[in-house]
Amino acid sequence: MLTPEYMQQIVDRYLAAINAGDMTAVMALYADDASVEDPVGTEPKRGDEILQFYTNAFSGGAKVELTGPVRISAKAAAFPFRAEITRADGPVIIVEVIDIFEFDPAGKIATMTAHFGPANITAKDG
Amino acid sequence: MLTPEYMQQIVDRYLAAINAGDMTAVMALYADDASVEDPVGTEPKRGDEILQFYTNAFSGGAKVELTGPVRISAKAAAFPFRAEITRADGPVIIVEVIDIFEFDPAGKIATMTAHFGPANITAKDG
Repeated sequence: MLTPEYMQQIVDRYLAAINAGDMTAVMALYADDASVEDPVGTEPKRGDEILQFYTNAFSGGAKVELTGPVRISAKAAAFPFRAEITRADGPVIIVEVIDIFEFDPAGKIATMTAHFGPANITAKDG
Repeated sequence: MLTPEYMQQIVDRYLAAINAGDMTAVMALYADDASVEDPVGTEPKRGDEILQFYTNAFSGGAKVELTGPVRISAKAAAFPFRAEITRADGPVIIVEVIDIFEFDPAGKIATMTAHFGPANITAKDG
């Protein structure tokens, strides 16, 4: 059942999976026909593109943490977080993001949209 | 033009208008054919329903403030805020919300969605 507690738990597991670098655990939270629009305004990714996206985005390591409460409505969770992302080819960057998860009746993430833009990206200690 | 600075300014004006109790100023930010889904999962409000909604919601006075940066993508702004709402018939409540504004090409808010639920509402000093 799609309770607030359940949705909160999925958000917690999602962030923990990213921090652990466990993209298989990330993918297990998504429905088979899920779409990921990250950032908002780009073409939604589906299927294998989603795994590829997470692998590329976080291959150098990432630390993510909530910066406020998860907002939980009838069928969605919205949460503000900060990502510290290390890439092989550049400086460590800090990105301030708001993600929205919409759930399907089975409790999987059906759509994810990520809100951020250039104004929300800074170089760490830069 | 839909610059990050412009979208940030609209968010600032929106919150200031609510704090001032100026619902005419709130409405001026919306497109004529705007929809307001507040909270997510309810029937979107349109036209006069939007003014009625704001008037009802904030008739007793409200204080709103950002609790983190406005996330600005190509065509949308997402922002976490805290609302302290006073009603004639009950206690002062604190609501933790994430609003999403999507803009039309003219720079008006075309759709607003508000993410929160019972888990995000507490009585002040309660």
